Amino acid sequence: MSTTYDALRRPRTVVVGAGFAGIEVARALGKAGLPVTIIDRQNHHLFQPLLYQVATAALSPADIAEPIRKMLGRYASVEVMLGAVTAIDTQARKVTLATGTDVPFDILVLATGAMHGYFGHEEWSGFAPGLKTIEDARRIRSRLLLTFEKAEMSADVTEQERLMTIAVIGGGPTGVELAGSIAELARYTLARDFHRIRPQTATVLLLEAGPRILTAFPENLAAYAQTKLKTLGVTVRTNCAVERIENGAIVAGGEKISAGLAIWAAGVTASPLGSLLGVATDRAGRISVDRQLSVPGLKDIYVLGDLALTPDEHGNPLPGLAQVAKQEGGYLGHALAKRIRRGAAPKPFVFHNRGNTAIIGRHAAVFDFGWWRLKGWFAWGFWALIHVYLLVGFQHRLMVAIQWLWRYLTYERGARLIAENVEA
Amino acid sequence: MSTTYDALRRPRTVVVGAGFAGIEVARALGKAGLPVTIIDRQNHHLFQPLLYQVATAALSPADIAEPIRKMLGRYASVEVMLGAVTAIDTQARKVTLATGTDVPFDILVLATGAMHGYFGHEEWSGFAPGLKTIEDARRIRSRLLLTFEKAEMSADVTEQERLMTIAVIGGGPTGVELAGSIAELARYTLARDFHRIRPQTATVLLLEAGPRILTAFPENLAAYAQTKLKTLGVTVRTNCAVERIENGAIVAGGEKISAGLAIWAAGVTASPLGSLLGVATDRAGRISVDRQLSVPGLKDIYVLGDLALTPDEHGNPLPGLAQVAKQEGGYLGHALAKRIRRGAAPKPFVFHNRGNTAIIGRHAAVFDFGWWRLKGWFAWGFWALIHVYLLVGFQHRLMVAIQWLWRYLTYERGARLIAENVEA
Repeated sequence: MSTTYDALRRPRTVVVGAGFAGIEVARALGKAGLPVTIIDRQNHHLFQPLLYQVATAALSPADIAEPIRKMLGRYASVEVMLGAVTAIDTQARKVTLATGTDVPFDILVLATGAMHGYFGHEEWSGFAPGLKTIEDARRIRSRLLLTFEKAEMSADVTEQERLMTIAVIGGGPTGVELAGSIAELARYTLARDFHRIRPQTATVLLLEAGPRILTAFPENLAAYAQTKLKTLGVTVRTNCAVERIENGAIVAGGEKISAGLAIWAAGVTASPLGSLLGVATDRAGRISVDRQLSVPGLKDIYVLGDLALTPDEHGNPLPGLAQVAKQEGGYLGHALAKRIRRGAAPKPFVFHNRGNTAIIGRHAAVFDFGWWRLKGWFAWGFWALIHVYLLVGFQHRLMVAIQWLWRYLTYERGARLIAENVEA
Repeated sequence: MSTTYDALRRPRTVVVGAGFAGIEVARALGKAGLPVTIIDRQNHHLFQPLLYQVATAALSPADIAEPIRKMLGRYASVEVMLGAVTAIDTQARKVTLATGTDVPFDILVLATGAMHGYFGHEEWSGFAPGLKTIEDARRIRSRLLLTFEKAEMSADVTEQERLMTIAVIGGGPTGVELAGSIAELARYTLARDFHRIRPQTATVLLLEAGPRILTAFPENLAAYAQTKLKTLGVTVRTNCAVERIENGAIVAGGEKISAGLAIWAAGVTASPLGSLLGVATDRAGRISVDRQLSVPGLKDIYVLGDLALTPDEHGNPLPGLAQVAKQEGGYLGHALAKRIRRGAAPKPFVFHNRGNTAIIGRHAAVFDFGWWRLKGWFAWGFWALIHVYLLVGFQHRLMVAIQWLWRYLTYERGARLIAENVEA
């Protein structure tokens, strides 16, 4: 790298976004004792892979969220800021927060990830909320539990059936996990607690526009997942594109489906922060970077995680996975530390596939390691083990493990809270 | 009792409110196989004595809330309804829900408890939220954590001092517990995670209008609590009545105190549901009942818990405590079951004091059993043991016990979440 730095002043790195990518960058720079400011709109880092369990009343929000300050508090050179970035000035080298505060940077790292996207139909979000944040999960949890409460109160059988129809839109891992977990919730947990309705007869639909679910997985694993979902009572409809969503109904595959709740797991779009950079983005809002994760044409600006369109060694884009984001964050943090300390030029980023996974339900999960495919009982146990391990902090690991064990033994879910003032 | 019932038809009891009192009535009637409908605005029963721990990030909402359906699901004769009662017709024998649904009753039990009251200054609730529901606790938790985040972001020392001033209004058990817990949060937990501010220097004020705190306790226990609060860094101000609350400041004892957050723990007022009955209430909105807990002049209408003004055997009103509500609920449920089954006339309710308690912080609590007074280390351990025991369900007991042990060992608090879109 041709950039040189004043030897008396360490350059300040500003990281926007404390997800899997951003937190790793900050951690690596913090460990190296280099100045870094990390800015996030939330005070917590979220373990998104388990967010569907919060949405389905199995875990509490705090079980999968860790305060960013707590994660980085031990590093004296790391500053944590709570705030929303509203402007980026690549010339004046500063970002501006919603409060008007300017935060100057020498090196900028953008890692604000993705949010759910409705392909231009943002009006659908009312009836079909998506799942990306803790608030999203709480909203879905409340509505999910409320639709059964409403069915119990209704005297009309048709309306009861509508209320007990839950449509999950999108057959990727999140959609599969949600549908499986909702079916288990209705079938095992809620079934015992209602007298007038039979929650186990609830219709859980998984609607996928493409010809099969779990397109990122090999066909035999997807077929296994589909069979397992069917066993749980989930109706999987492929080649079933959603055409319209209105309050109380979805039009998909040419048919109008009356439903008590729809959940959107069909599309993501990159965080709008990318547009603040003033560079071109792809259709999903992602910013193209080179294999050092830097934005071509801009000095010392890096983009990584779901916000980035990153080429692998063959020029193909890397998938939007937590493990990609995490590895990119670790790579960039160390690369920046080396460069700042010794002026070393970074090697290109290489993604190491740790295995792609999705869980369907009790005793049923799929793993794709590329060279090894795994499904069933063993994959399920492995999934649980890995996810407990990947959680941040011993307390979270312990709490989640105990709750899973309890749920496994009793079919109970501990977080069945309906928030006040929720409209379904 | 002179009322007789059709032998072929069991009279239906409708219980409004699933707090400590209502849930016990429903449980006793459910055990006896008698028809009962319990109506609550929430889907969960809340263990209010630990709500201050949710507000101070020590526990998650789900740890102290249990779905009403789950608690009563085993009793086939119990119907659970989620809804808000908006009208009571004592002649036509029905209550009406906000949705317009009518629920007929033969016997009506009102147990909707109390809410925080601002002595006619409801406009104070904006800056000084009270603590009665899960949403209240979440709101206080977010604002409490946010005021430290804002202080960290501020460049102005005076403003930092204001933001790090937290005033708890009201020196009863809730006020004492909140103030102690906030002081420990700032001093131990947050102190490690901030670099620019020193959270351990935060000013935690406990403002009490009367001459001393914990007026329901003997003077030596109150004096002990005050000393312990001082050790924790809480400034206790007695004879300090709040005159005005505005955004960012409190006027109390003739002095204007700038603060980042105020929490209202000073007054409760009975649930407005009492007024729907059309009978006279006292200044706090409570309904006078006789020693059988029935409302004089109304047929088969009972009021209990914090909503009731109940005389003890000497004619003095019983205090508004969880144990009073719980005992009243158990008493009434059994009395109603006996009366319905055998026409037995109920004996008057007698309250058995199980001991009044308040916790100040680590190793410090007070107990008043009347004949025995306890403070310090042993009281603290006893407090923890009793509260774990009183929680509903093994899972909650286990989860709370583990979190307390973890907190005891590490000074960490697991639920440090700031909700989106919270204004401080």
